[in-house]
Amino acid sequence: MFYVIGLGLSDEKDITVKGLEAVKRCERVYLESYTSILMVDKERLEAFYEKEVIIATREMVELEADEILRDSDKVDIAFLVVGDPLGATTHTDLLLRARSLQIPTQVIHNASILTALGSTGLQMYNFGQTLSLVFYTETWRPDSWFERLEENLRIGVHTLVLLDIKVREQSEENMARGRLIYEPPRYMNPHQAFSQILLTESLRHPKDPSSSSSDDGEPQIEPKPSLLPPSETLAISLSRIGTPTQKLISGTLEELAQLSEEEFGDPLHSVVIVGKKLHPLEFEYAGRFAVGGEQGGWWKVGKEVYGVERETF
Amino acid sequence: MFYVIGLGLSDEKDITVKGLEAVKRCERVYLESYTSILMVDKERLEAFYEKEVIIATREMVELEADEILRDSDKVDIAFLVVGDPLGATTHTDLLLRARSLQIPTQVIHNASILTALGSTGLQMYNFGQTLSLVFYTETWRPDSWFERLEENLRIGVHTLVLLDIKVREQSEENMARGRLIYEPPRYMNPHQAFSQILLTESLRHPKDPSSSSSDDGEPQIEPKPSLLPPSETLAISLSRIGTPTQKLISGTLEELAQLSEEEFGDPLHSVVIVGKKLHPLEFEYAGRFAVGGEQGGWWKVGKEVYGVERETF
Repeated sequence: MFYVIGLGLSDEKDITVKGLEAVKRCERVYLESYTSILMVDKERLEAFYEKEVIIATREMVELEADEILRDSDKVDIAFLVVGDPLGATTHTDLLLRARSLQIPTQVIHNASILTALGSTGLQMYNFGQTLSLVFYTETWRPDSWFERLEENLRIGVHTLVLLDIKVREQSEENMARGRLIYEPPRYMNPHQAFSQILLTESLRHPKDPSSSSSDDGEPQIEPKPSLLPPSETLAISLSRIGTPTQKLISGTLEELAQLSEEEFGDPLHSVVIVGKKLHPLEFEYAGRFAVGGEQGGWWKVGKEVYGVERETF
Repeated sequence: MFYVIGLGLSDEKDITVKGLEAVKRCERVYLESYTSILMVDKERLEAFYEKEVIIATREMVELEADEILRDSDKVDIAFLVVGDPLGATTHTDLLLRARSLQIPTQVIHNASILTALGSTGLQMYNFGQTLSLVFYTETWRPDSWFERLEENLRIGVHTLVLLDIKVREQSEENMARGRLIYEPPRYMNPHQAFSQILLTESLRHPKDPSSSSSDDGEPQIEPKPSLLPPSETLAISLSRIGTPTQKLISGTLEELAQLSEEEFGDPLHSVVIVGKKLHPLEFEYAGRFAVGGEQGGWWKVGKEVYGVERETF
């Protein structure tokens, strides 16, 4: 049997009882290491499982799938994934490959950021499509996510934005020289995420229309109003969700962008852009961790721009 | 400590190791029994936990929250929820109540239908807002979900449709007479769900425009074309997801509506309406369980209407 087992979000004990029993039966145990991370290291998992854990890099999963699957028609093999195992395309791929080789497979589900974001108090039902934000560089700022965000905002639903993770990244120089030396892992902080979101918003919806106009005498096209005005859009940062040091901060985009990296702390992080269908109970719950407390922009904008009334408990 | 603990989707062993350790420490253990069900009964949970399990009805949670929370500032109390604990508003409510009483709380996450629907092969990232479909009666057919579905279809994202569950329901007669006699629990089957979806679609977008026109000489307004033509819309049924008897069926809405209740089998069920942003890998994966196999409408409509090309493995 080829098991694909979710590990949940925090540490070695977030595996399900069923998942742990399966791991204990397995001859080889792989840990997918490039789409997410736990708060504990491989050694702690090995001690808990009493098994060796093999780190599976992206290259290994994409190029050596048959080695991972080897003998799983005869013995049990586990492929461990942080969160729920079917969040990322790559693992669907591996399951399709297994099935084409007539290997029996079993998926053992677990919590993922997509369920744990209930911790914000926002209802999972009210979320639209999920976005991924990659690290911008001076020359590379892929922003096709912005259209998807606008689609969500237009219909008033919330948006989960997943933040980039770079592991086993090579510098351009090392890559050019063919040296297999990797940079330290990088995890995007909400500080950077909010900056990138504001940057893209300002480029797409310049405040001063003349800055984007041309001087060729063409008639000016009135720019469309932004769906994401920074002082009138609510957002929430989610740090280390599902772990004992979990931290949530809610506020306007403008307020959150002014917080330092240290305010959010260690990875992993993600952020949520709040849609206009905000419900009073969602508003109340997420307001408990508002920047500036009772005087914060969360309450003012929620009431005046989103039109939500507070509930009392 | 007041623990709110997710149980996952199938049986007693889908609880996490951390969740189980917490339950073992608790003085009282409640099981929320009205938003979802496990495939095993209370007795099996009690045997596994070596604890008594108290069934928490909707009335108890909504009206007697303080009794559930009693003493949880001094001893450990567990509130168990099938799936992930923060999927339904009611539990957010309970946590807010606990916090207003200065009771420390901890949420232990788990898999929910929202992550497990990765089993369809559809990417969770590509889902829009989630809908709930309630049992229609002769006189009561609430269909505000249809607008939300159209919002999703317009931007091409997939839609998860959760199906109604009726537990501890009273007949009108028993309610009128004040008799606390409850009807057997009912769980909506995809057969009924697809029928209701087609019914609402046909009422909103009559095929024969004359059937909805008035004879008062007013100029006819051309009806908007349906975003959900039954023979050109792909859908998937999800039955007992995350359990050993899990069953998925994909096809056109028209094909799926023709299947009998028995084809889908026992509860719980949900259904997915597939959006136009369908990716080739999603198409391929979900096609493995298409009605009619290789000759089914899934492949024809996916190619001709959704414009997706097949991948090979």
